[in-house]
Amino acid sequence: MENIKTEHYDILFGQEAYGQLGTYLNNNGYSKLFILTDSNCYEHCLPYFLSNLPTEVPFEIIEVEPGEENKVLDTCAGVIQTMLELAGDRKSILITVGGGVITDMGGFIASVFMRGIDFINIPTSLLAMVDASVGGKTGVDLNGIKNCIGVFAMPKMLIIDVNYLETLEARQIKAGYAEMLKHGLIFDANYYNYLKDIANVDFGDLQALIHHSVVIKNTVVTQDPKEQGLRKILNFGHTVGHAVESYFLTNESKQTLLHGEAVALGMVVEAFISKELAQLYEQDYLNIKHAIQSIYGVVDLSEDDILNSLEWLKFDKKNYSGNIRCVLLNKIGESVYDIEVSKELIISGLNSYLN
Amino acid sequence: MENIKTEHYDILFGQEAYGQLGTYLNNNGYSKLFILTDSNCYEHCLPYFLSNLPTEVPFEIIEVEPGEENKVLDTCAGVIQTMLELAGDRKSILITVGGGVITDMGGFIASVFMRGIDFINIPTSLLAMVDASVGGKTGVDLNGIKNCIGVFAMPKMLIIDVNYLETLEARQIKAGYAEMLKHGLIFDANYYNYLKDIANVDFGDLQALIHHSVVIKNTVVTQDPKEQGLRKILNFGHTVGHAVESYFLTNESKQTLLHGEAVALGMVVEAFISKELAQLYEQDYLNIKHAIQSIYGVVDLSEDDILNSLEWLKFDKKNYSGNIRCVLLNKIGESVYDIEVSKELIISGLNSYLN
Repeated sequence: MENIKTEHYDILFGQEAYGQLGTYLNNNGYSKLFILTDSNCYEHCLPYFLSNLPTEVPFEIIEVEPGEENKVLDTCAGVIQTMLELAGDRKSILITVGGGVITDMGGFIASVFMRGIDFINIPTSLLAMVDASVGGKTGVDLNGIKNCIGVFAMPKMLIIDVNYLETLEARQIKAGYAEMLKHGLIFDANYYNYLKDIANVDFGDLQALIHHSVVIKNTVVTQDPKEQGLRKILNFGHTVGHAVESYFLTNESKQTLLHGEAVALGMVVEAFISKELAQLYEQDYLNIKHAIQSIYGVVDLSEDDILNSLEWLKFDKKNYSGNIRCVLLNKIGESVYDIEVSKELIISGLNSYLN
Repeated sequence: MENIKTEHYDILFGQEAYGQLGTYLNNNGYSKLFILTDSNCYEHCLPYFLSNLPTEVPFEIIEVEPGEENKVLDTCAGVIQTMLELAGDRKSILITVGGGVITDMGGFIASVFMRGIDFINIPTSLLAMVDASVGGKTGVDLNGIKNCIGVFAMPKMLIIDVNYLETLEARQIKAGYAEMLKHGLIFDANYYNYLKDIANVDFGDLQALIHHSVVIKNTVVTQDPKEQGLRKILNFGHTVGHAVESYFLTNESKQTLLHGEAVALGMVVEAFISKELAQLYEQDYLNIKHAIQSIYGVVDLSEDDILNSLEWLKFDKKNYSGNIRCVLLNKIGESVYDIEVSKELIISGLNSYLN
């Protein structure tokens, strides 16, 4: 698989990438290597990673609890304190080995540790491979508000190795797949049309699909790294998705939704709004709804759940001047951004999603 | 007083600067202005600031508790939550009105709020005017370890208005003065020689002295904004100073030292080491010790205090490969950096400081 050169770093594919990683580490005078991972990856991914790590740089492993509920400042403080106790300095480098929680949080920790050290991402979930670890968005949540604390910071290297996916649960694979569907919906109709019938997809060549998604994401990010404009399209499904995700995350009576599952729901609702406010054909909306619900089912939402979820919309990073702004589809494969949307229309979209 | 243009922003002097601030705010499409201050400045500085603020941008004031002990992640989380509740968005701007604690922490909060918004510094203490607010270092402490979490981020504008100093206690003025002495010691012998006899200094033209210090700091920072090399000289006195400051900060039986007071102590100790490891004449060391102790007195340190303070040296950001590195003086006005120093020599320096 061909590697991808971004403006700031290389995205390397496959097991042969570790050789380059070792060379990079050995040649850049790092004093120490910190490997940040969670307890799941520690068990399932780290032995393979370490057996493939050809470096002379002394390393330490820092393990945190898994899950979105741990992607918070307190966890960062604990990791930073540990790095300080282990004599981390400004010539240290951090490698994240994990899913989106670890790559998001690890990138943030590296960016603020002693005002910034280098980092490298080794995503181990499908979602992190196709989305979270690419493009330099780092961050943590605050009181359930998603990624409201963070920085834009590019890794020095990114390795995508599908071997990590072998131990991943089907639910996690499906969650990552939602971001791939999103890439198709906003940017590449052929890609979406191939992916939407999941039964016909050739998972034997999942790496090629991941590669295609990364090319799309990188194309968008390169044009607008700090999300002043175009990059917002990567947030399709995320305005409503994040709101529902935050509500579920902070409500003890709810089983936490995976990010990709929330985005799948959000994409249906925002496709509904797209037929109202943008140029999406009703038939395309119905097809999107059918395709996504065939894969993800329907999340059970009471009227109260809907109203409570809407409370989280005010924290969306695309808002300005007090208004909610969505990414919408003009057609499958073509998106627009900064479209003002009313809460009423979002409620209609959620009701259409449920019925 | 002539304004100073840095590579990224302007440093404006005097009361007439607020006109430019208002124009800047009105012309840059900000949705909301957050003013971060502490309860002391809220009382003494904010009425004057607000009466001079000619802007149409809607603003909110966020007040935190004063003091270094509040320059921590928890305070940042509280401020960020408040900004989110007050409908802060990516087009918001934050203005810090306060001393070094507020400018350090406010710059950090702005840099991580929704992955970064603009900020402007209005330093109200002498220390923040000559040092903390200039040069783009932002950050907070963790468990007493100074500024170990932060980013390099430049403000959009900086206003230095000596009117704020009128309500400042003498102890605070003296603390800021230590950083001015430092600027002389590392970079400008004439400046140091003028400042060292504080009885002869013309405080009627304090603004001119502040201006001179800012020119020195800016000259250094411009050559090395991210402290890869030269900028380290601004840390003269800070290796030992930060260690003692952290020990006092985290020890309930100690009255907290102001940052400038700790740096004054550190400069004497590091001048002692300079005569041992660099080319500083013994007589110059004795003169520096005499001058600084005439202004700041001698901080009382027991043998236990010394040993406990030394424990904090391992967290210094200039360390690498496990060794402590100091900025030393070859002579008054000329400094070198990255010099490896043993704990034994630091103990000797502290004992010389005490005797």
